[in-house]
Amino acid sequence: MDVVAELERIFHPRGVAIVGASNRPGNLGGFLLGGFVQQGFDKDKLCAVHPSEKEVAGLKAYPTVGDIPFDVDLALVYSPRESGPRVIEDCARKGIKGVVVCSSGFGENGAEGVNLQQEIVDIAGKSGTRLIGPNCVGIFCPSSSVTNFAGVMPKESGSVGMFSHSGSLSVMFPVAASAMGIHFSKAISCGNECDLNAVDFLEYFGQDPETKIIIAYMEGVKDGRRFFELARDISKRKPIIIWKGGTSGVGKRAAASHTGALAGDPEVWDAVFKQAGIVGVDSAEEMLDCLQAFYFLPLPKGNRVAVISGMGGMGVAIADACTEFGLEMATLSESSGERLAEFIPKIGTSSDNPVDLGMSSTFNSQLFIDTLGVLGRDDRVDMIIMTTGSWLPDYVNKVLEVTRTLSKPVMMITTPALKLFMEQPKPAKGIAIYDDGRRAALVLSRMAQYQRYRSGG
Amino acid sequence: MDVVAELERIFHPRGVAIVGASNRPGNLGGFLLGGFVQQGFDKDKLCAVHPSEKEVAGLKAYPTVGDIPFDVDLALVYSPRESGPRVIEDCARKGIKGVVVCSSGFGENGAEGVNLQQEIVDIAGKSGTRLIGPNCVGIFCPSSSVTNFAGVMPKESGSVGMFSHSGSLSVMFPVAASAMGIHFSKAISCGNECDLNAVDFLEYFGQDPETKIIIAYMEGVKDGRRFFELARDISKRKPIIIWKGGTSGVGKRAAASHTGALAGDPEVWDAVFKQAGIVGVDSAEEMLDCLQAFYFLPLPKGNRVAVISGMGGMGVAIADACTEFGLEMATLSESSGERLAEFIPKIGTSSDNPVDLGMSSTFNSQLFIDTLGVLGRDDRVDMIIMTTGSWLPDYVNKVLEVTRTLSKPVMMITTPALKLFMEQPKPAKGIAIYDDGRRAALVLSRMAQYQRYRSGG
Repeated sequence: MDVVAELERIFHPRGVAIVGASNRPGNLGGFLLGGFVQQGFDKDKLCAVHPSEKEVAGLKAYPTVGDIPFDVDLALVYSPRESGPRVIEDCARKGIKGVVVCSSGFGENGAEGVNLQQEIVDIAGKSGTRLIGPNCVGIFCPSSSVTNFAGVMPKESGSVGMFSHSGSLSVMFPVAASAMGIHFSKAISCGNECDLNAVDFLEYFGQDPETKIIIAYMEGVKDGRRFFELARDISKRKPIIIWKGGTSGVGKRAAASHTGALAGDPEVWDAVFKQAGIVGVDSAEEMLDCLQAFYFLPLPKGNRVAVISGMGGMGVAIADACTEFGLEMATLSESSGERLAEFIPKIGTSSDNPVDLGMSSTFNSQLFIDTLGVLGRDDRVDMIIMTTGSWLPDYVNKVLEVTRTLSKPVMMITTPALKLFMEQPKPAKGIAIYDDGRRAALVLSRMAQYQRYRSGG
Repeated sequence: MDVVAELERIFHPRGVAIVGASNRPGNLGGFLLGGFVQQGFDKDKLCAVHPSEKEVAGLKAYPTVGDIPFDVDLALVYSPRESGPRVIEDCARKGIKGVVVCSSGFGENGAEGVNLQQEIVDIAGKSGTRLIGPNCVGIFCPSSSVTNFAGVMPKESGSVGMFSHSGSLSVMFPVAASAMGIHFSKAISCGNECDLNAVDFLEYFGQDPETKIIIAYMEGVKDGRRFFELARDISKRKPIIIWKGGTSGVGKRAAASHTGALAGDPEVWDAVFKQAGIVGVDSAEEMLDCLQAFYFLPLPKGNRVAVISGMGGMGVAIADACTEFGLEMATLSESSGERLAEFIPKIGTSSDNPVDLGMSSTFNSQLFIDTLGVLGRDDRVDMIIMTTGSWLPDYVNKVLEVTRTLSKPVMMITTPALKLFMEQPKPAKGIAIYDDGRRAALVLSRMAQYQRYRSGG
């Protein structure tokens, strides 16, 4: 059984056991058991394992894994680290395919922890049971009702697969993205990677038909060569967006204490990202900014951007940012110029790129729609950023009517003032929405760079 | 009368006339007249000037400026550019101190516009009437009920003075900032700067006792030498935060069409900013990020930052960003280490900087408060960034109880997921709030750099 098949089974378990789940307030195992129930996992195939509890979160609790009467393919372990070897032994004997060790205090926590970690690896290795973690938050797969948290996880399944060296981020991103209409196929908290690691998860997502976009927060990598070769190949089919943590000296030391990972030099990572077509981002916000574009927009066919604004200053500043990030400001075709001249007022405006519709566009949103129509059909324009001086209740829908007929990315910039008075528009297929033009320009530059990699350029 | 006294009079006019205000829907002059009424300007000292209207926005309209029966110190002109010379002539004869020419089509709009602009400058120059604009949005001064827009402008007066080569931004920033509890003393849209220009406005704000922080969106400068010398001096007393637009080739050309300004090379600007202690920002978002910190927080005394997180990954990434932006990760004192060890759980955490409170801190916000208390009193820590795994309704107040006893900047990072479920905390005296740790780190690095300038370092 290869690692892809093993993970497929782990993500679609016939039964789930949560070891160390109790009714004590603040107990993370008990909390997660509630999460599985909320997520809709079959209660007859779900249980706690605890030495003294009889029932946890309304479900039966068994004293040991061996006592569970149904088939279990996934165990999540929250019991204290000392019990680790015994629990893994029990899981192996029960024939459990995957054990996610959520407990901390192993490889990241001194010599005793390192020894304990080696012990569980040895036990699991003999039986063919695969381990995720330790020191992790779990795995999320909405299509099979497997979850890594309670209360907040979305139920919709989508096309984003994530692996993360931060457990919190593996919870936070699916939740935050869901509010933007972006849904996840799976999310994995890698933890200390004593057995299955980021490279395995990358390979799985590369083959997983549910997953179309791969994102990751990574602090280091166990097998750099295999990671690079996989990424180089997968990038040609699916974008891989990685936020790399632990790039600074202190960050590296913190990463070592966090997950015991070797973080590696930033120069090396930059080279790997470039050669493997990986889209790099530098913060949680940049990740969500990028994800939005890759999820909702087509890739640009070239590097030429057009900017439409109703505020001259914003248009100038976005042109600056586009240039700074390596995009080319499009030279509009003559016929576009002629068509724009037909409806853009003569004074206080500019029909050149960046197109400035002037102050009066605040009261005439149709100017934006008409300009978008012209630039959208201009072959010299590969992508469009539009700021809006205002928007009507149906403004975004009108924009979408146009963008759906185009095969180029269109981004809309909301202004910090306007969103106080009107409902913030949401991204959707055909439009990405950003609070700031500079952020949009950065994302477009990354899309264009990725498209060049994908087309072999 | 020097320029500071002239501007003081213009900002506190005995009467205001809006030339070209009509009842036609979409007429900007009529719209603005309504804004003055909303803002509470004395209706008996406010009127429209229009050849045919008898009444605009419920106020009397006069055929010419000369017909107005009360003293007028400020006229705002919206009539077509052709009427410019005649209107300025009328204003000069009436003895009006300041005329803001909002109409476009002058220096930014071809040879005819350039000639018209020169004509109004000559007329005003002979009489001592000062001009702002043309091609601008107006001026805002809440303490005297002078406004540049209708419907949305805040009435509260505060300590931020702004001049801007984008009229829209001179409206947008006071509105957006107000929602964050940040209030403006004045905002000026510079327009084409045919007479009064950015350097005059900088000089005014340098002396204006209402103004404690100066911000600007600038595309160019008319008198670089005087600007530099003023800024170098004023920066020692008041921070000057500038967003420079028109830095790229295309941006420069667009800026020329936008306000006719010469934008200058970015390298020159960088050197000027550095030597004059100017805080540079690169987008609207960065401006608001910076403004928040300078408005609500004390300056850091040094360059050493401590990070508190409940998510290891976030802590690592913020440490990376701090290092990238030139801050130093603080080495905590021994006694801090000892005190932290008393209450931070032993496993899944780190008591070194970046301090990682671990997953269970999600359910125990008090850990953050206690850690803040320890780091706040550590002399080796000059500033603090804290992420929160969660917050209680009174969490921010508890944080504020601590920060109010400290004289170092403290920033709180909200997470994109959490803010979906809880009310987003607002910044206040003693705490700045950011959506992303990288943005907070960038702002802190700018504060530390400014503090070094101010202390002569």
